[in-house]
Amino acid sequence: MSSTATAVAQHGQTGRGDQSVEAVRRILDEARKDGRTALTAPEGKALCDAYGIAVPGEALAKSADEAAKQAAAMGFPVVLKIVSRDILHKTEAGGVLVGLKSADEVKRGYDTILANALNYDAKAVIDGVQVQQMLTGGQEVIIGAVTDDSFGKLVAFGMGGVLVEVLKDITFRLAPLDSQEAMGMIDGIQAAEMLRGVRGAEPANRDALADMIVRVSRLVSDFPEITELDLNPVFATAKGAIAADVRIVLDFAPKAARPRPSREEILASMTRIMRPRGVAVIGASAEDGKIGNSVMKNIINGGYQGKIYPIHPKADEIMGHKAYKSVKDVPGEIDVAVFAIPAKFVATALTECGEKKISGAVLIPSGFAETGNEEGQIELQEIGRKYNIRLMGPNIYGFYYLPANLCATFCTPYDVKGHAALSSQSGGIGMAIIGFSRSAKMGVSAIVGLGNKSDLDEDDLLTFFEQDDETHIVAQHLEDLKDGRSFAEVARRVTKKKPVVVLKAGRTAAGAKAASSHTGALAGNDRIYEDVFKQVGVIRARSLREMLDFARGIPKLPTPKGENVVIITGAGGSGVLLSDACVDYGLKLMTMPADLDAAFRKFIPPFGAAGNPVDITGGEPPKTYQNTVRLGLEDPRIHALILGYWHTIITPPMVFARIMVEVVEEMRAKGIEKPIVASLAGDVEVEEAAEYLYAHGIPSYAYSTEIPVAVLGAKYQWARGAKLI
Amino acid sequence: MSSTATAVAQHGQTGRGDQSVEAVRRILDEARKDGRTALTAPEGKALCDAYGIAVPGEALAKSADEAAKQAAAMGFPVVLKIVSRDILHKTEAGGVLVGLKSADEVKRGYDTILANALNYDAKAVIDGVQVQQMLTGGQEVIIGAVTDDSFGKLVAFGMGGVLVEVLKDITFRLAPLDSQEAMGMIDGIQAAEMLRGVRGAEPANRDALADMIVRVSRLVSDFPEITELDLNPVFATAKGAIAADVRIVLDFAPKAARPRPSREEILASMTRIMRPRGVAVIGASAEDGKIGNSVMKNIINGGYQGKIYPIHPKADEIMGHKAYKSVKDVPGEIDVAVFAIPAKFVATALTECGEKKISGAVLIPSGFAETGNEEGQIELQEIGRKYNIRLMGPNIYGFYYLPANLCATFCTPYDVKGHAALSSQSGGIGMAIIGFSRSAKMGVSAIVGLGNKSDLDEDDLLTFFEQDDETHIVAQHLEDLKDGRSFAEVARRVTKKKPVVVLKAGRTAAGAKAASSHTGALAGNDRIYEDVFKQVGVIRARSLREMLDFARGIPKLPTPKGENVVIITGAGGSGVLLSDACVDYGLKLMTMPADLDAAFRKFIPPFGAAGNPVDITGGEPPKTYQNTVRLGLEDPRIHALILGYWHTIITPPMVFARIMVEVVEEMRAKGIEKPIVASLAGDVEVEEAAEYLYAHGIPSYAYSTEIPVAVLGAKYQWARGAKLI
Repeated sequence: MSSTATAVAQHGQTGRGDQSVEAVRRILDEARKDGRTALTAPEGKALCDAYGIAVPGEALAKSADEAAKQAAAMGFPVVLKIVSRDILHKTEAGGVLVGLKSADEVKRGYDTILANALNYDAKAVIDGVQVQQMLTGGQEVIIGAVTDDSFGKLVAFGMGGVLVEVLKDITFRLAPLDSQEAMGMIDGIQAAEMLRGVRGAEPANRDALADMIVRVSRLVSDFPEITELDLNPVFATAKGAIAADVRIVLDFAPKAARPRPSREEILASMTRIMRPRGVAVIGASAEDGKIGNSVMKNIINGGYQGKIYPIHPKADEIMGHKAYKSVKDVPGEIDVAVFAIPAKFVATALTECGEKKISGAVLIPSGFAETGNEEGQIELQEIGRKYNIRLMGPNIYGFYYLPANLCATFCTPYDVKGHAALSSQSGGIGMAIIGFSRSAKMGVSAIVGLGNKSDLDEDDLLTFFEQDDETHIVAQHLEDLKDGRSFAEVARRVTKKKPVVVLKAGRTAAGAKAASSHTGALAGNDRIYEDVFKQVGVIRARSLREMLDFARGIPKLPTPKGENVVIITGAGGSGVLLSDACVDYGLKLMTMPADLDAAFRKFIPPFGAAGNPVDITGGEPPKTYQNTVRLGLEDPRIHALILGYWHTIITPPMVFARIMVEVVEEMRAKGIEKPIVASLAGDVEVEEAAEYLYAHGIPSYAYSTEIPVAVLGAKYQWARGAKLI
Repeated sequence: MSSTATAVAQHGQTGRGDQSVEAVRRILDEARKDGRTALTAPEGKALCDAYGIAVPGEALAKSADEAAKQAAAMGFPVVLKIVSRDILHKTEAGGVLVGLKSADEVKRGYDTILANALNYDAKAVIDGVQVQQMLTGGQEVIIGAVTDDSFGKLVAFGMGGVLVEVLKDITFRLAPLDSQEAMGMIDGIQAAEMLRGVRGAEPANRDALADMIVRVSRLVSDFPEITELDLNPVFATAKGAIAADVRIVLDFAPKAARPRPSREEILASMTRIMRPRGVAVIGASAEDGKIGNSVMKNIINGGYQGKIYPIHPKADEIMGHKAYKSVKDVPGEIDVAVFAIPAKFVATALTECGEKKISGAVLIPSGFAETGNEEGQIELQEIGRKYNIRLMGPNIYGFYYLPANLCATFCTPYDVKGHAALSSQSGGIGMAIIGFSRSAKMGVSAIVGLGNKSDLDEDDLLTFFEQDDETHIVAQHLEDLKDGRSFAEVARRVTKKKPVVVLKAGRTAAGAKAASSHTGALAGNDRIYEDVFKQVGVIRARSLREMLDFARGIPKLPTPKGENVVIITGAGGSGVLLSDACVDYGLKLMTMPADLDAAFRKFIPPFGAAGNPVDITGGEPPKTYQNTVRLGLEDPRIHALILGYWHTIITPPMVFARIMVEVVEEMRAKGIEKPIVASLAGDVEVEEAAEYLYAHGIPSYAYSTEIPVAVLGAKYQWARGAKLI
């Protein structure tokens, strides 16, 4: 029994026992012995039987009564077939009857078949009659499993026929999974409604389908050698689900698992890298324009308080710090070494770092896998593993960790401290993160370049930021995941505590091609990324700007306590666009209870619109915004507010901004905190108002009705995934 | 024959003659006489026959030879049925044969049936044998027509069964249409691939389907009383398309057409409104904070050079201009009157405007339909029609027309002249347009508030801007179209010359509900708006910000001469995201020819990536950007460029910006103009570079890989719709 099987069995979720596992093992061993890479139909059926995956029932009856009993057990209608080595042409012999619908019909059918057979060949030796369940009606669906290079075992579910073939209406999840996740798959396809009964059809038994998905997920997880499994079609009826055809592909030479340190090991290394006692700059330089000079300046000017050790073959001192020829000459402790030397010198210096027991190497130099120098990168990986040095990069801009005032990078220093930790696979995107953050005054805890990801990758960062109190949200740009399974496992845990936003580049075929020419990374199937992110609670950003807006806005918002969103707007036109955006971003506009409607009406003109949006109309004074927003915050049935401001002379932008902040602070003093976002329509003064509101915890956008709602929608998406609402 | 029928007949596109039209007319008159609102199946079939819409063939044969001939004419297989008043139970009598596949089978079948019948009842009087075409196989599709309150007659096309019922995979177009538009419908559904043959099926005869759509579109256009028509299912096979079932619904009490001035009348009025010789401000005031004061200030400070006539019950002079008690007292010509008085005084003043023969009334006051005062608004409409005054509003901020330096609004004056004409149904959105335009230095020709649209609406504006040389693009925010048919007809003409961008608010159910509470407008079915916009070449913006970005960016770009887009990037990571965006926005990344690839390679480092994107890598000097972009502009096989800039010390942002502008100007001097957009990744200095590039004709965005591609994509969408590429 594999360790996964044991784990699942211990959770008590499986109906299978050791016996089932052994039955499967025997069949697979047989196939392995024969050198086969696929199972026969009877073997496939036997695997299904062992794991409780329903296939059409079949049995051999020796009497009419037995046939009737067997048929009743497997369900009507059934097919009867004569079983006799002497009768090859069964139909010709009158030895086949289809569509028998009752025990009586089966009994009579048995006798008829026997009589026909003996009539056909009086000397035939009759073994009996095969009773076979006949599949009719219901919906045809597909349940399957594949093995992805990055994510490992995945189960798939889709509707049969053109829906999956033409419309690609199929969904994936990591295996194994539980029945709730399986039900999420069934509800998650585009044509989900079909299983609830359309055009007068009976609804399918969705529980039976979910159960079959769970069982498939366990089977493929228990036996890594099962690389592909297809149940196609599965007949889904009101009664249950039966797989009409089973196809199983095997591979007995599984890939070696990627080396993976334990959580404790990752944290030990990452903590030394992020909060080092001493930093070595290998290739430090006093000469302006050199990367080693920029790194020195940034570390010093960034305000890092630990020891700084410039490493240089000749210099005695660089920028006020004593220089050394090698890290091995440094008397004190070094936790991290930043490399600012050409590619060809890196391996030697890295070995010295190993001998010095340095924990992390920040490999800024390019000239490795991204330029075709795979060997050079493998050499570094081997040195890293030998000496237990974690490698960041190569081919990166370095990293920032602001709680330690550490700017270990050749870019400009960054000093707006906050709680967003960002990372990027690409240097260009890293620069965009820095520029946007500075421009938008987005407080960050960290910005990390991952580049070629020879070692440290997204899940190492997630593991560190999970327990880093200075980080409240993690946003990652990535083009591929070297180990999607590991990322998913860590992300599933982290997203329970902190939002994780991912911008997955290479979404499209064209993008994937560009990604592969760029980093040599094989971009995975985007549908799988999409589904796995959903499964583990990761928020997927659709564009670079969206990732940045999410990273900036989400941590500003308190977690909502429920789904009821109310729009309060001075501009009716904004109200319409904000409502559109609510649908786009999965927000639920509260149906306004009569008493609350009446309460809002007290504050707004008689021709203001009822319901939700609350349209206070355009000509209102600050008091009207104040009263309605206060009511929205005070009433416990409302969980989040979207404000639509319209610039007027009566309520100028900064007046609006200040009273909004006042109301929010007044409520906060009473212990009331709800997420609020705002859309500001008006002349250029609204830009200052938006900035003021943002700085005071209300993500606000000028000239946009979509972005504020997208940010609130992302917060909700996270809260739902983390089961906080 | 209706005027539409005549028009189509004159185009020579129809196979039907007056005879067909008369045949249909006779049947409809019959139904009208009977007071029926639906046709019987034989009547429906007769209409189809008259318009050449294939229905299953049927005929009465009197001999075996005749039956065989009829069957061959309608196509095999066929069904044969005895026709005899004496034989009620045809099947029992052996009088039905199905699935006959050849002339011989039919001949033999005819004889068999006759023999069976006489065998069954020797005395039966036999009329003959009915030969019926048997529909089998092929794809089931739906072709239909509906009558929309705003758009009038629309044809619909979709796949049959769950695809239309569950997935709503259906598309609409204005009727009548031509075969190319019909083919666009067939190719436009999600499951389009199914008709090209999937899972080994034969492809359907798409020409036959397109032809049937065209015929249906003509039938419903020729006869306004046909309000609904359904051919469901239509069997589409390799041979042709046959409608198995016809359903036709009638309404003999059509709605009165909306009054609609001619193009010449619209232009005459609009020209007087936009370029007035004299402007009256009704309710002009010298008192700060009054709307009538703001309007006066804006008109004066905006630099308007015509006559300004303040109208005030008591004042002799306001802000240096002689005041009058009524427009009727003004000695000179007045072309437009701006209203800044309470709702209750508007009707009287409007009548005076009529008597003064003023052409346009800008009705800023609110308090009409939007507050439930429908009667008040109808009164204004009646006065307007009586005196031929076109009404803008009521419930608006007014309008700006910059070529005449006219700011007829109570908002701030706007002075960045350019070539985008914008309009909004909502005042709040109007303010957002003003703020964004000012902030982004977007040159505009006009900004117009349409508010309640009691009279002037989007198509009036389109008609004016079409021939306004100062306007190169029109962008309109709208919540509904009072007369979608008229809008579509004008837009179809205008989009051939100038891009038209529409932000349709109330896209979603929630948005539509908000729209109806806001303006009393019934938001139409969004799918219909979507499809009609596509049909007439309107670019649909998905968000407010997108509309603004499109209005700003599209006119900056020269029209591309072909579909080949090339990305040149310093940041590989941006290249991947830009490629993703190309797929999202329908741009085609050129497959790089070998010689061109080699030519690019000469300029970039050996490890730069081949193909498209051209990845020049991050550490390159300005020269590399310059050389590659010059090559991209010079080679005639490339039609558009997307630049991905990565901020480095070697090529700082403003250096990049300046050399790009240099290259573009160098090429322009040689007569080479191609659309270029840029995505800038870097520290905050990239914002200045983006602004510089934008000002010099290269729409550029900091921290975004999506927006520049969206803008280029919109330009392409327009150019394709206008058949320029």
